[in-house]
Amino acid sequence: MNDETLAPSSYDTSQRRSDALWSRIETDPSGLRMLTGDRPTGALHIGHYFGSLRNRVRLQDAGVESWVLVADYQVITDRDVVGDIKGSVRELLTDYLAVGLDPERSTFFAHSAVPALNQLMLPFLSLVTQPELERNPTVKAELAAAGKSAMGGLLLTYPVHQAADILFCGGNVVPVGRDQLPHIEQTRVIARRFNERYAGGEQVFTEPGALLSESPTILGLDGEHKMSKSRGNTVMLRMDEAETVKKIKKAKTDSERVITYDPENRPEVANLLTIASQCAGRTPEEIAEEIGDKGSGTLKIMTADLLNEHLAPIRARRRELEQDPEHLFSVLRAGNERANEVAEKTLARVREVMGMVY
Amino acid sequence: MNDETLAPSSYDTSQRRSDALWSRIETDPSGLRMLTGDRPTGALHIGHYFGSLRNRVRLQDAGVESWVLVADYQVITDRDVVGDIKGSVRELLTDYLAVGLDPERSTFFAHSAVPALNQLMLPFLSLVTQPELERNPTVKAELAAAGKSAMGGLLLTYPVHQAADILFCGGNVVPVGRDQLPHIEQTRVIARRFNERYAGGEQVFTEPGALLSESPTILGLDGEHKMSKSRGNTVMLRMDEAETVKKIKKAKTDSERVITYDPENRPEVANLLTIASQCAGRTPEEIAEEIGDKGSGTLKIMTADLLNEHLAPIRARRRELEQDPEHLFSVLRAGNERANEVAEKTLARVREVMGMVY
Repeated sequence: MNDETLAPSSYDTSQRRSDALWSRIETDPSGLRMLTGDRPTGALHIGHYFGSLRNRVRLQDAGVESWVLVADYQVITDRDVVGDIKGSVRELLTDYLAVGLDPERSTFFAHSAVPALNQLMLPFLSLVTQPELERNPTVKAELAAAGKSAMGGLLLTYPVHQAADILFCGGNVVPVGRDQLPHIEQTRVIARRFNERYAGGEQVFTEPGALLSESPTILGLDGEHKMSKSRGNTVMLRMDEAETVKKIKKAKTDSERVITYDPENRPEVANLLTIASQCAGRTPEEIAEEIGDKGSGTLKIMTADLLNEHLAPIRARRRELEQDPEHLFSVLRAGNERANEVAEKTLARVREVMGMVY
Repeated sequence: MNDETLAPSSYDTSQRRSDALWSRIETDPSGLRMLTGDRPTGALHIGHYFGSLRNRVRLQDAGVESWVLVADYQVITDRDVVGDIKGSVRELLTDYLAVGLDPERSTFFAHSAVPALNQLMLPFLSLVTQPELERNPTVKAELAAAGKSAMGGLLLTYPVHQAADILFCGGNVVPVGRDQLPHIEQTRVIARRFNERYAGGEQVFTEPGALLSESPTILGLDGEHKMSKSRGNTVMLRMDEAETVKKIKKAKTDSERVITYDPENRPEVANLLTIASQCAGRTPEEIAEEIGDKGSGTLKIMTADLLNEHLAPIRARRRELEQDPEHLFSVLRAGNERANEVAEKTLARVREVMGMVY
């Protein structure tokens, strides 16, 4: 594997590393620490849930120590206004706890609240070059998605900030999609260079592994590529049953009466089958066969019912949690405190090996 | 003045702003806060002293509140090893206190010790674009001077870090040479954009003014452009009298017997005259006239004598200070504490206006 860029072969290496992590999770997850998180831009939808959240809860429940980052500074990587960030953080926390992330086993913390973590940006920035920052394909894609012409300084350096997020707490498991692999590779390079350059080869930082999962990507209900709140093509976790039915009924499908699971040629139908399959714990093919020639109308009703049934306990917890936002923020504050303790220890170690203790 | 780049006209604007600051310093310096500092790469030489340190002491003594940054993270902007940074910091502090910077009136602090200052990098990075970072001429020059091919991430973003240095403590006076004006402009832009974009126009940050001075640039004794320790063409503050005489005797001059002050055609002779002039408080022309046709030998003896006489009290203090390095570090630790208090207040305000208080 090339150290500097993500050559095709490094996808194989990442996959093998991920497979090894999965076996370790199944056999003995002690010593594994997972770092996950989200930009707080509002409440979450079923794309987040089936694509990522549910997997995090499984890992937490399997005994992986879990750190969950509310990446508030990331909100301004590609937009000029912060907006109602406190409201967005509250929604995010509500969804986190509703789906089963547990403050007893997961540490929730916000970027803006952990100065010692953010300080790691400085030594880490010295370990990467501008060309390396520029060729990060994920950052390029995010710039394009934001529709901006000039790359912002925070977006450009965001993989370095992410390295600080992962490394400050000794995160060694990072559940990501394949599109996020370049970020993890950047973190691995930073850890390695720090150890070599500033710590005389001592393993101050551990290179994390990307954990690739089978979680599906849920498409938008309008047939758009990705479920996205800004396009209104989502089912939000916080919606009630009637709204869910309404949204699913409006989903784009096709007029073919016989339902088949064919993601390539019938992506919208396949998407509903995937949602139904995720809820029912059966394969999309089985569900398609059960519907047979009853058409999209039946598929929609079945999907909406399965989804409402599956989300019912989550939504019930969500309604309870909504009653007490102060509790949610107290969970975050406790997590911030824990993150600060850990970050200050890490920073002290970094200062020590760099000789910056006066 | 163009907001984004340093057009020729903005040198005039900067000069006028600097003139206004000088009159304020002379009449009523209350409310002025100066930010200065150095990379800790070892002990300082007379180029630092006549070019900058002496001016800082004057400003401090005139009643300008003074913050002095030991920019330890800047050491790794253009080199891969930290080296004996604690030793370099000790030397720097010894020189600072020896020349008359006074811990009672100046706050000394180190980058690595002030996490809340460093955190300001994050929101500030969101306020600049990559093209703005790239076209900073000072950063380009520093890259060339370091002899590296690829721009490092820390060097590229260093003007943003410097903005954090200046703005965290409300620095409004920054004594710099004209070559540093682009950095100050970048800080002004960041302050302005922060206020507009994140604080609804409230003046959370004050745009600092560059304070341009008449301090001379001392050339290297080998006739090189700049005095620089790595070239061995310096007189260090810490040298003794005999070493100083030896160094000055070896200085490059010319064989013309009649000494004249002609910086363009006789830069080496002019340089010694400048040093002598700075020590004697007389013009270089007066000193040249006094020497007349007695040649470079006499010029060197006179310069060395004046320099030794001028530096004698500084060197005496330096020898005392060297006896107690622990005192020097305790001065730094007290300054770090004060800097942390101020930085935490500033960061709390930044979080507040950005709505990141949970």
